[in-house]
Amino acid sequence: MKRRILGFIRIIRPINGFMMSLAVLVGAWLTLSETPSPLLLQKILLGAVTAFTLSGASMTINDYCDYEIDRINEPNRPLPSGAVKLEESLILASMLIIIGLAAALFTSMWTALLALVSLVFSVTYAVRGKRTGLPGNFLVSFCVAVPFIYGGFIVTNGFDYKLLFFSLMAFLSNTGREITKGIVDISGDKSHNMRTIAVVYGERFAALLASIFFVASVLFSIAPPILGLVSVWFIPLVAIADIGFIISSIALIQKPTRQNAKRIKNLILLWMMIGMIAFLAGK
Amino acid sequence: MKRRILGFIRIIRPINGFMMSLAVLVGAWLTLSETPSPLLLQKILLGAVTAFTLSGASMTINDYCDYEIDRINEPNRPLPSGAVKLEESLILASMLIIIGLAAALFTSMWTALLALVSLVFSVTYAVRGKRTGLPGNFLVSFCVAVPFIYGGFIVTNGFDYKLLFFSLMAFLSNTGREITKGIVDISGDKSHNMRTIAVVYGERFAALLASIFFVASVLFSIAPPILGLVSVWFIPLVAIADIGFIISSIALIQKPTRQNAKRIKNLILLWMMIGMIAFLAGK
Repeated sequence: MKRRILGFIRIIRPINGFMMSLAVLVGAWLTLSETPSPLLLQKILLGAVTAFTLSGASMTINDYCDYEIDRINEPNRPLPSGAVKLEESLILASMLIIIGLAAALFTSMWTALLALVSLVFSVTYAVRGKRTGLPGNFLVSFCVAVPFIYGGFIVTNGFDYKLLFFSLMAFLSNTGREITKGIVDISGDKSHNMRTIAVVYGERFAALLASIFFVASVLFSIAPPILGLVSVWFIPLVAIADIGFIISSIALIQKPTRQNAKRIKNLILLWMMIGMIAFLAGK
Repeated sequence: MKRRILGFIRIIRPINGFMMSLAVLVGAWLTLSETPSPLLLQKILLGAVTAFTLSGASMTINDYCDYEIDRINEPNRPLPSGAVKLEESLILASMLIIIGLAAALFTSMWTALLALVSLVFSVTYAVRGKRTGLPGNFLVSFCVAVPFIYGGFIVTNGFDYKLLFFSLMAFLSNTGREITKGIVDISGDKSHNMRTIAVVYGERFAALLASIFFVASVLFSIAPPILGLVSVWFIPLVAIADIGFIISSIALIQKPTRQNAKRIKNLILLWMMIGMIAFLAGK
């Protein structure tokens, strides 16, 4: 029984869900210009629920799609180990989708639409996107950036430029990171017929393309202070992230090996988090 | 030549230095109640310089002390590989200390004193602290918490209660994390005669003690909103971190293995960062 319950918890990957909820809260907070009303606060919390449940549904559907591969590579996962049955995983995913979309509908019609689009994107990735290389990377990056946009969307119906820049930078840097991950997974991906950048064009090209995305994100980071969207605090903090992105890009191009790419993909996550802290402190 | 320059960069571990600078900026930002004057801003940036250089000096001294061990275990590090000579590392550390303390003196007499104390603590850890188990863990946690305090110290001469709670929570959760790391490194530590909690009392006890520190940190997180030190935004964000700490504690106690401890020490870092984001958003 305990193994079954643990299986249901493990298959939804609650930590990913927490991250998605966190992103909704951060997106909402960045957009707010005054103390929110209790009603708005409630909507934002519903947004966090939507993010958590839809993330859980995507993760479950992802494991459902990977069942055959995981039976060989990851026999301890909830599905191949038998802790969760295949049909149970689909019921779980359906329930999570219903809760998530209901919470989104209680927020507004438009947020429900955005939630639905995000769900379609993440399921598309799970079903087919992984094999497609760059388009798949874009799908993942969309799913990383969308909860921030979603949080902002709950607060305002207009466009928040600060959040637009922030989401764009998250999208770009995460795409670079996904390409870098392709260098780490190259041998496994090759044997599974995944057409990632690293598999199709080689490690060196992947490292270069990833670095272009990182540098693009760095270049965009200059805009918010120039446009006066952020306070002076943004500058020293984003400088740390930017130096990090540039050092990591140089290191990756110089030595696009599996070992080095693995180290750098973790560092990139750190620079992304510091970039987020820059926006938080620069509000 | 390139190898030598890279060696000098690698030995100071610039990423750790960036983290320390980031913490000073975050500590200052959390303490500020109004837009800082140019003079204050300059002092805060000097604080970031102090953090970066003194961190670099500690890292270099640490590698100097570990030279004999690294010759066997980590032959590629700057000192054992010969990229940086032993005497050069001491000159480098001295120069970094002079720059760091000078920057601190330009800030104020009191910050210079705090910088000096922190340096003594981190060097104590490098020279002897590592072998001592819990006292060594406390030294590391002090060095993790102190840059936040330092940043706040630059801004105000009085005590900032919010920052006090924040630093205390950082101290407690990092101590738990250090104990967890002891479970990961148990076999290596045993053979090097390190008297960590895991070596002396076993994995199970270490897991339990680490969890007590995590839960203590969670309990302290209730205080800031009750005392009205933070806004309502603190609550949902810190809730994510708190749930994470509790889930990780349960997982660690249930299975205090090397593999599991390794996974959990990374998760703990994530919860710590989310806790910091909670303070940032709750300002």
